[in-house]
Amino acid sequence: MQLITLGVADLDSAREFYVNRLGWRPLIDVPGEVLFVQVGHGVAISFFVAEKLSADMGVLCDPVSHPAFNLGHICVTEQEVRNVVEQFRAGGGTVLKEPGRADFGGNHSYVTDPNGFVWELATNPGWSVDDDGVITLVPVV
Amino acid sequence: MQLITLGVADLDSAREFYVNRLGWRPLIDVPGEVLFVQVGHGVAISFFVAEKLSADMGVLCDPVSHPAFNLGHICVTEQEVRNVVEQFRAGGGTVLKEPGRADFGGNHSYVTDPNGFVWELATNPGWSVDDDGVITLVPVV
Repeated sequence: MQLITLGVADLDSAREFYVNRLGWRPLIDVPGEVLFVQVGHGVAISFFVAEKLSADMGVLCDPVSHPAFNLGHICVTEQEVRNVVEQFRAGGGTVLKEPGRADFGGNHSYVTDPNGFVWELATNPGWSVDDDGVITLVPVV
Repeated sequence: MQLITLGVADLDSAREFYVNRLGWRPLIDVPGEVLFVQVGHGVAISFFVAEKLSADMGVLCDPVSHPAFNLGHICVTEQEVRNVVEQFRAGGGTVLKEPGRADFGGNHSYVTDPNGFVWELATNPGWSVDDDGVITLVPVV
């Protein structure tokens, strides 16, 4: 678990709060689209425009009262994505989006666990972490 | 951000899936109450019975369609809890639960960010992490 993606109704307010007030370091900041901040050793939160995240995940969520979110596991290979998807399917989860090309340049899939919590399983060639847990994230598209 | 707490409708199915099938290591396992598993360097997920989590957070959530969850930041002192709560309040967040004694033996508070995502700010004397990021979690009550 290296990433938590939160669908936000107001991305600007998320930036104002986490980056400008709390002083967290942005990894990637694309206004109107997405903001990544590092929150731990090799762990980031991404704030994603709520409607776009819901559409990408294939779930209907109210952006204010019940915004979409998911937990992200970054895989090394596309085969690992497929293998973990099969583990979720075999364990009683539901595949929301079969593995395939992602807009960010990797390969990804959305699956739920048996309680309905959503995981994104993804390769991301732009994601790397050094020995101290510091993440580097570069757009690859 | 060291902890993600997910309110689950069925705690037994979470244990069966994450511990028995995926092989994740339980840190604490209290049937009918809570299960902690380590998911990264110094990072854990706790699965909490949905109704109990909603009640503790003071939010009304449907345990199946829109379960409660929160992101957890472990503070070193009770003063740090109070300081971070004030940062959230000043930044446009809402305090769901003012800092006070928690059932797990520490001091905690629930606050929302400007988009409504909930953070738990807490001291936890039973939580420690070694240099390799391995968490030790012992009940202190």
